[in-house]
Amino acid sequence: MKTRVCELSIQLLTTLAVLASASSHVSAQSLDDVQTPSEPLVLKAQGSFYIGGEKVQQTQGELGNLGPGGHITINQMYVRYMVPQAQDSKLPVVMIHGATLTGKTWETTPDGRMGWDEYFVRKGYPVYVPDQVGRGRSGFNQAIFNNVRAGSVPAAKQPELLRFSDEGVWPNFRFGPKPGEPFSDSQFPLAAVDELSKQAVPDMNRGLPTPTPTIKALSDLSAQLKGAVLMGHSQSGSYPLEAALINPAVTKALVLVEPGTCPSYTDEQVKTLASVPLLVVFGDHRNNPTGLPTLPTWQERFERCQALITRLKSADGQAEMLDPLTRGIRGNSHMMMQDKNSLQIADLILQWLTKEVSTSTGAKR
Amino acid sequence: MKTRVCELSIQLLTTLAVLASASSHVSAQSLDDVQTPSEPLVLKAQGSFYIGGEKVQQTQGELGNLGPGGHITINQMYVRYMVPQAQDSKLPVVMIHGATLTGKTWETTPDGRMGWDEYFVRKGYPVYVPDQVGRGRSGFNQAIFNNVRAGSVPAAKQPELLRFSDEGVWPNFRFGPKPGEPFSDSQFPLAAVDELSKQAVPDMNRGLPTPTPTIKALSDLSAQLKGAVLMGHSQSGSYPLEAALINPAVTKALVLVEPGTCPSYTDEQVKTLASVPLLVVFGDHRNNPTGLPTLPTWQERFERCQALITRLKSADGQAEMLDPLTRGIRGNSHMMMQDKNSLQIADLILQWLTKEVSTSTGAKR
Repeated sequence: MKTRVCELSIQLLTTLAVLASASSHVSAQSLDDVQTPSEPLVLKAQGSFYIGGEKVQQTQGELGNLGPGGHITINQMYVRYMVPQAQDSKLPVVMIHGATLTGKTWETTPDGRMGWDEYFVRKGYPVYVPDQVGRGRSGFNQAIFNNVRAGSVPAAKQPELLRFSDEGVWPNFRFGPKPGEPFSDSQFPLAAVDELSKQAVPDMNRGLPTPTPTIKALSDLSAQLKGAVLMGHSQSGSYPLEAALINPAVTKALVLVEPGTCPSYTDEQVKTLASVPLLVVFGDHRNNPTGLPTLPTWQERFERCQALITRLKSADGQAEMLDPLTRGIRGNSHMMMQDKNSLQIADLILQWLTKEVSTSTGAKR
Repeated sequence: MKTRVCELSIQLLTTLAVLASASSHVSAQSLDDVQTPSEPLVLKAQGSFYIGGEKVQQTQGELGNLGPGGHITINQMYVRYMVPQAQDSKLPVVMIHGATLTGKTWETTPDGRMGWDEYFVRKGYPVYVPDQVGRGRSGFNQAIFNNVRAGSVPAAKQPELLRFSDEGVWPNFRFGPKPGEPFSDSQFPLAAVDELSKQAVPDMNRGLPTPTPTIKALSDLSAQLKGAVLMGHSQSGSYPLEAALINPAVTKALVLVEPGTCPSYTDEQVKTLASVPLLVVFGDHRNNPTGLPTLPTWQERFERCQALITRLKSADGQAEMLDPLTRGIRGNSHMMMQDKNSLQIADLILQWLTKEVSTSTGAKR
């Protein structure tokens, strides 16, 4: 273990020159890096709304002494949507992001290319992008932080606010074997890796109820949409499975992009999940150490998902692993929706949706 | 003071029945409440990016023990944009939200109507909607929270996380004289007031450097856009003025929607600001108590802004107060971008932009 820590320290030292710019300020991305598509985007509708949330009563102190005590809403989930004008009754796709990130994951890539949100809309799918409860424009319960400040709750009870360091991201997201040393075939746009760093915000997940309210909110969103495809990523990779167990009838398909886990479900749960088509997608270099010694490698996670797929198939489910390696596509990272070949991966998912998932009139919009 | 607190308590008690639903769960807004426009929205481009940010080095503990210590980015500003296809070289408009809120302020209204973001795009303006640094999809420095948890920093040093209670919002945002008692002419869509409650998230402003990095980020955004109209609201109402003082050449106009303050600038600052056209907009019922006894009433804030306008005019500036009352428009609240007549107010702002602000080719997109 000591050797491991030492190795990490050496890695951190060697990578500082690569990662830290001379100034402590991150060089501003020029807006000129953001690319304009050649064809206009024609939307029937776009906008945003909230799902769920809980009204609670709090004291003036718990509200940070900004005004009188009273009621606030906590644990609500923000959702932004775009609906294409050229709609042929395709199912809505809900894209939910991973740890320490927000819905930004699916928008413009770090190097300024079109995100999957817009690409799926251009392919005719209404797209709904939430922020997980406790992150981004979705709320959380701040009372414990103010109570700790006031001394009425012990500091140790305060939940940790989670962040990945850029150095931790390199091996874990498999940009390279070590921080600052890219794989020769890496598909991530590494010249813009500082832009990915900017997408990270503090993760309040440890301050949320268990299970996270995001799961019920995803199920409720699917119900309001009268059926949806749920796409998760990383931390949220298992959320679509959990949402499907709540209400399988409105969960029309599940796409898990590098899920952090594929849980060991009971036979009964597997039977329920077998009614919903499932696609799991993993990138390359899965045997790379994650940089987080307590976590399984991505290859181990891949195998757990493969095991779930096998069980679902045994229960007559439509379940498939999309491993780009088997198609000769190499170098994809954990952030494949931002990789240089992100639209190639999107096309493979879209092909699966077309082939395996029946369309539906779904929601009215 | 004691009487005041007692009055507030009575107000809170009387309003509980109105505000708190029988269940503690907020009733989910049906997606059917979200309205679809009759005409499609045709965009040349849409997407998102970050402005600014600072790279700092932190320990594993400061990062919440999720992975190894190292570098992260803090205090970066998220910006979402929509650029209309039918562009006649109109200036980009940057819309920045107020306290405890996010960029959602300008999107779909609580009762499901089109937000000012889309309305301005439909009128030919490229629109850029940031989240303030420390809120929404914009980052902040979480280290002090984890250090307090670990016991290495005293709890009292931890910044307060700010929220407005729904009961505080009613008088302060001037929905009515007291919580749950609307003004008879209120323009706010009060049947959907719980949806406004959901838009509120913890406000980390007290944990940010002073002045807030949002101001420099707004100035940098205007520079990257090669000129922009900066529109602030409430807490951020003075940010456009501050951004203009940093770089007046790229600040093409200022629109302050119910600014929390119009600062007492020096003569030299007024001279600089006089080079930028200014519009200030205030709603109705400005003498209503704010519900926050330490704060000035909105009438007092109106008068401070009127005084700034007078000084700017004396310095040959184009500065104007838009008071809907003088046009016979009554009942507008603090959230006039969400009021039932929100597009009527938007039209008055658009008329002013057309009349007073020269268009520019501005940014390339």
